[in-house]
Parts: sequence; structure tokens; C-alpha cells
Amino acid sequence: MSSVNASDRRETRIVADPALPTILITREFDASPDRLFRAYTDPDLVVQWLGPRRLTMRIDVYEARSGGSYRYAHREDDGTEYGFRGVFHEVRRDERIVQTFAYDGFPDGVSLETTVFEDLGGRTRVTTTSLMGSVEARDAMIRSGMQRGVREGHERLDELLGTRPSGNAG
Amino acid sequence: MSSVNASDRRETRIVADPALPTILITREFDASPDRLFRAYTDPDLVVQWLGPRRLTMRIDVYEARSGGSYRYAHREDDGTEYGFRGVFHEVRRDERIVQTFAYDGFPDGVSLETTVFEDLGGRTRVTTTSLMGSVEARDAMIRSGMQRGVREGHERLDELLGTRPSGNAG
Repeated sequence: MSSVNASDRRETRIVADPALPTILITREFDASPDRLFRAYTDPDLVVQWLGPRRLTMRIDVYEARSGGSYRYAHREDDGTEYGFRGVFHEVRRDERIVQTFAYDGFPDGVSLETTVFEDLGGRTRVTTTSLMGSVEARDAMIRSGMQRGVREGHERLDELLGTRPSGNAG
Repeated sequence: MSSVNASDRRETRIVADPALPTILITREFDASPDRLFRAYTDPDLVVQWLGPRRLTMRIDVYEARSGGSYRYAHREDDGTEYGFRGVFHEVRRDERIVQTFAYDGFPDGVSLETTVFEDLGGRTRVTTTSLMGSVEARDAMIRSGMQRGVREGHERLDELLGTRPSGNAG
């Protein structure tokens, strides 16, 4: 792994386990765990990067603490909204976030998401594991096109952190 | 299924899926869904039946509503305590409860538990699915002896509901 270049490091890896109903998302960022943790927990920052570029995010509630709740929506230009909600089981500063996640259009399809911030010495590896109730539900999530939104969100997060090597970061 | 007798109906079925990291617990009770729902959500009732007979339950927090939290402990006679905590993703009256669950001794081993109350016409089938992060974690949960505690809890719930056919219900 020591030979990967900066571009490879920034690749978002999305793996659907063949045997488990999980999606494993891994990405490295050129910033410290505390900066990544803030970007994942401060709603004023989350709203700037989470999700695909073409959608506008609106956060109604974002209590990123153990026992807190969240609710937000992504809006198309034509006004169509996709709402999401869940609760934070645990928010452990600079280390770990465990939360539930459900799309309003399919409220019984609840997944459990665990995000871990790993200090690589100046850089941070962020790993999110989404655990779903069945392999079918997981495959439907993959087919929904979530991968593009995740990748674009990570690129926007690079821009927000000011760590995008060649781009339009402010 | 129409030929099962009352005793069979009251059997607690605990199934570990060979392919998924889940434990499926099914039990029928001779009471209506709204009575079962109350027994699962009112802390004054929960404290009377949840868990094995030999342990004493203490509830610190039990906010059985969407977005609420819970924390409780089971205590041995010698004072040893086993603490548990989680959050309620959704509490849908008389129908469905989705919550996270973790043992204080292993706080990173978070499971997602979905309990469904199914109206059988006077009786209720209660199904709880526990979804864990790995088959190994699931197998460890089975080995922990949880099955006896679950079965005894269901018997105590029969007694609390006053529906135990031949027993020492008050």
C-alpha cells in the first residue's frame, strides 16, 4: 500500500460483501481525524458536502451526539425531495459514529451505519459500513445509484477541506 | 399450523440464520397487540418481565418513542451488573419497534433490533430480528446463553399478562 499515489488514495472504494448484507465504503482524506469528525457532525459543514452535486441539501435536525436524531432532505431542481432520518446510537469524538438510516420512501428498510475515523498521521481513512436486513435490500441500495452520490460527496468534502489537489476549491 | 396446541403456540422459537448475521425470535401470546405493545414500551411493565428470572432489572431511561433512548441493567444477587443501552429509531404504536442494542461490556458490538406485533385475532405473534455486524458476533451472542433469558422473559411476560394457562400468575 506504500506505493499508491495521491490520486489512488483519494479513490472511494465501495464494496458489497458477497456473503453479508453490507456495503463497505472506504476513502482517505488529506486532513486530520478531528477535521473529518467535524465535517461529519457539524450540520453547517455536513450540508455543504453530503450527497451528489445536482441535489440541494436541507437539514431539519442534526443532533450528532449519542442519543440524538437527524432528519434531512435532498431536493431536485424541480422540487422533488428525498427525505432521510435516523438516530445516533453513539458519537465518539474523532473516532466513531454509529447511527440508523432510513429513506422516507421506504421507512421499514432501516440500516445501521458505522463510520470509523482512522488516523494515518496527518491523513485520515474514513470507513463506513452499512448493515442492512437482507442481501436483497443491500443490492437494491447499490442499484439505486448511491455510489455516484457517495463519490461526489467525497469530492465535495475534499473541496470543503481545501485538500483537493487540482480543482475548484475556494 | 392450525393443529398446534396452546403449548406449542407459546414456544419461543430462536433461529440463527445460517447465511445472515441475524437471530430471529418468534413467540405467540394470548393477548392483543396493544397489550403486547404496552408491555414492550411502558418501563413500569418492561421491568417486570424482561430477562432471566435470577436477575433483577433496573431501568435508568426508557423513552420508547421514535428518537428516544434507553438504558438499563440486570443485576446478579452478588451485585454484578450487566448494562445495556440503545436508541429507538422508530416506535410505531401496536405495530413495530426498531432500536439499536449494545452491551456495555462490548459497546462496539451494536445490533439493530426490529420487533413486529402481528394480530392473530385475539392473540399476537411477536417477532424480533436482531441484525449484527458479523456471523461471528451473532454466534457469540448465541453462545452467551441469551436463549434461556429470552425464553424465561417470555414466560414472565405470559404471567404479567395473566395469560399463563397453568402457572403461578398472580
